[in-house]
Amino acid sequence: MSNDNNNSRRKFIQQTSLASAGLVLAGPLQIFAQTNYNTMYKNIKARGYAGKDVAGKMVPWNFERRAVGDNDVLIEIKYSGICHSDIHTIKGHWGPQKYPQVPGHEIAGIVTAVGKNVTKFKVGDQAGVGCMVNSCMKCDSCKSGEEHHCETGGMVGTYGTPEASSPTGITQGGYANNIVVTEHFAIKIPKTIDLKYAAPLLCAGITTYSPMMKINFKKGDKIGVIGIGGLGHIAVKLAVSKGAEVYAFTTSPSKVNDIKSFGAKEVIVVKSATDLQPYKGKLDFMISTVPYAYEMSPYIDCVKKYGYFTQVGQPVNGELTINNFNMIFNRVNFNGSLIGGIPETQEVMDYCADHRIYPQIQVIKASEINDAWNKVVNKEARYRYVIDASTF
Amino acid sequence: MSNDNNNSRRKFIQQTSLASAGLVLAGPLQIFAQTNYNTMYKNIKARGYAGKDVAGKMVPWNFERRAVGDNDVLIEIKYSGICHSDIHTIKGHWGPQKYPQVPGHEIAGIVTAVGKNVTKFKVGDQAGVGCMVNSCMKCDSCKSGEEHHCETGGMVGTYGTPEASSPTGITQGGYANNIVVTEHFAIKIPKTIDLKYAAPLLCAGITTYSPMMKINFKKGDKIGVIGIGGLGHIAVKLAVSKGAEVYAFTTSPSKVNDIKSFGAKEVIVVKSATDLQPYKGKLDFMISTVPYAYEMSPYIDCVKKYGYFTQVGQPVNGELTINNFNMIFNRVNFNGSLIGGIPETQEVMDYCADHRIYPQIQVIKASEINDAWNKVVNKEARYRYVIDASTF
Repeated sequence: MSNDNNNSRRKFIQQTSLASAGLVLAGPLQIFAQTNYNTMYKNIKARGYAGKDVAGKMVPWNFERRAVGDNDVLIEIKYSGICHSDIHTIKGHWGPQKYPQVPGHEIAGIVTAVGKNVTKFKVGDQAGVGCMVNSCMKCDSCKSGEEHHCETGGMVGTYGTPEASSPTGITQGGYANNIVVTEHFAIKIPKTIDLKYAAPLLCAGITTYSPMMKINFKKGDKIGVIGIGGLGHIAVKLAVSKGAEVYAFTTSPSKVNDIKSFGAKEVIVVKSATDLQPYKGKLDFMISTVPYAYEMSPYIDCVKKYGYFTQVGQPVNGELTINNFNMIFNRVNFNGSLIGGIPETQEVMDYCADHRIYPQIQVIKASEINDAWNKVVNKEARYRYVIDASTF
Repeated sequence: MSNDNNNSRRKFIQQTSLASAGLVLAGPLQIFAQTNYNTMYKNIKARGYAGKDVAGKMVPWNFERRAVGDNDVLIEIKYSGICHSDIHTIKGHWGPQKYPQVPGHEIAGIVTAVGKNVTKFKVGDQAGVGCMVNSCMKCDSCKSGEEHHCETGGMVGTYGTPEASSPTGITQGGYANNIVVTEHFAIKIPKTIDLKYAAPLLCAGITTYSPMMKINFKKGDKIGVIGIGGLGHIAVKLAVSKGAEVYAFTTSPSKVNDIKSFGAKEVIVVKSATDLQPYKGKLDFMISTVPYAYEMSPYIDCVKKYGYFTQVGQPVNGELTINNFNMIFNRVNFNGSLIGGIPETQEVMDYCADHRIYPQIQVIKASEINDAWNKVVNKEARYRYVIDASTF
């Protein structure tokens, strides 16, 4: 996810650099085995995989996290999902970056230490971190659970955002063995869902869940999902579970059977705009996860008049071409949607745990990240790579 | 306005070529002075200004209209507005054209003959024609007064649309001394409004009125209007008259005083995106009349979250760049809007007549059309050129 790096946010970050004191330990010490109590007032040593420059090759890297503050939890990461956003960010597709940078914002693990003010977690709890790790918590958006729309300068992204409290000067993400995060920004992961399935829900899940929930669709409503990768396949499963009739649009014929198994009513393999013609004006809502510029108009035309089309995939530099000849005739409302707030992220986590909605994942080792990235770009992921964090 | 020229529409048009019989004369014959009764069963001779090729130079041209059919009226044109769409169309900016082509879809005049089935008009009535002259009248859209969204193949545009009944093979517009049109597609112009003020309402008026009425804004709501030319200045006047607080965005400092006189609360002269920063997230609705590609995102950012931004100006080939980084943060709904149906066009005409909302116009002679077109492109129109049709 991108951040709106402006002066007010930087100022806010500078003003709130953390005191890093008052750590409280709780829960069974054995879970804490890898953490040395005596070092907990100090920065936390971490190892992970980082991009070192815009070339985007991921390499092993040892770095430090901030010490665990009064309101922080330390999470031993067990699984970390690979999102197309990681690739876009590290390769500079969304703007210049600072390096080394550890990406990853689909983080699931076990709490191994908590600050003295922490009430939401105890040591041993399953916890996750998504796309943001801080915000002002004082503005109307933050107070109403829309921390991702923090008005004082924007949320602090999980990686790549300048942050005074971070020993590396920027936030570092989840392709690593641990993370320190303000408890508010950690999500409780129910025991009923395996951490490896929970991880992708923290970006792919919430990013598709949030806009679909906003439209208040009814059972039987026709929802189109464009791009059936990491986000798209969860969108299909979520929409199906909520009673929608799902139309999945993919450019990969090899995905058809999988997508049907996710519950889609129809899978449309799109070779050209002609393939979309039969769906013109037929769908109540569409969500597009396509992370590159593409010919949007024939897809938008598939939505019923006055319906909504939400683009959650973020192309290079964010730029998309929209054709206003189509827009004046189709009368569709085009919008974007950015992840979701912490309460809603908790909601989708709980919903998926309760309803056994699990992403279809492939667990890989850290050494396989570069290969996996290539496969993500080449649409070969089936459907989310999740890194086993014990291999960092 | 563009047309969706597809096979079903062509087929429809071929099936409905007119019988051209049964003309009924009514009303005072003196109004009929320029029309020879004996020729009324024949094609109607017309003279106007046409573009002969994509260069877009307008030249005098004599041509024929279809004979007046049972459901038709013949209108002696008195005034014809110049819309930027005329220029875009003739110059091929919106796709290849057939020539010679007479543009003009802001047509106001006097009925000089009516077909035997005509009930809406009598000879001597003031009547106008906007952007369309036919549609199937059988589909749900047509039956519900949204003829511009005719589902059987689209509306028949006032000029440039292939039409079997037209002696020239395409419809010919209002830069001429007369027009023959199915009565349903003629608008009644109240006697309380001068024809020269009525003409621009038939495109500029309805195109801005329709989307503004759809949002059901309340008194005091903040409406932004982008591009204060032919459409924009009427949008300002209409929004003001309905009680909105209007923010007018222009790139022309020389327009500021005029726009304030139209009732705008603020006029913002935009030199760069920085000038828009103070309005970020402040407006309830925005309408953009800009007829070229422009940097839309900083304007869209001015709308409050979950508000609407409507683009009615149509750029070259319809293509606009939208930045999805902005869209995921601003949460604005972007849409387009195409003119309005016949009932709503009648509504805006009656509303403007009743409330004395008159476009600010400059009446020109036919020989001045080319000069006026250049001025329109160069943002020098103040604010709508209207051709005195007696000079054709």
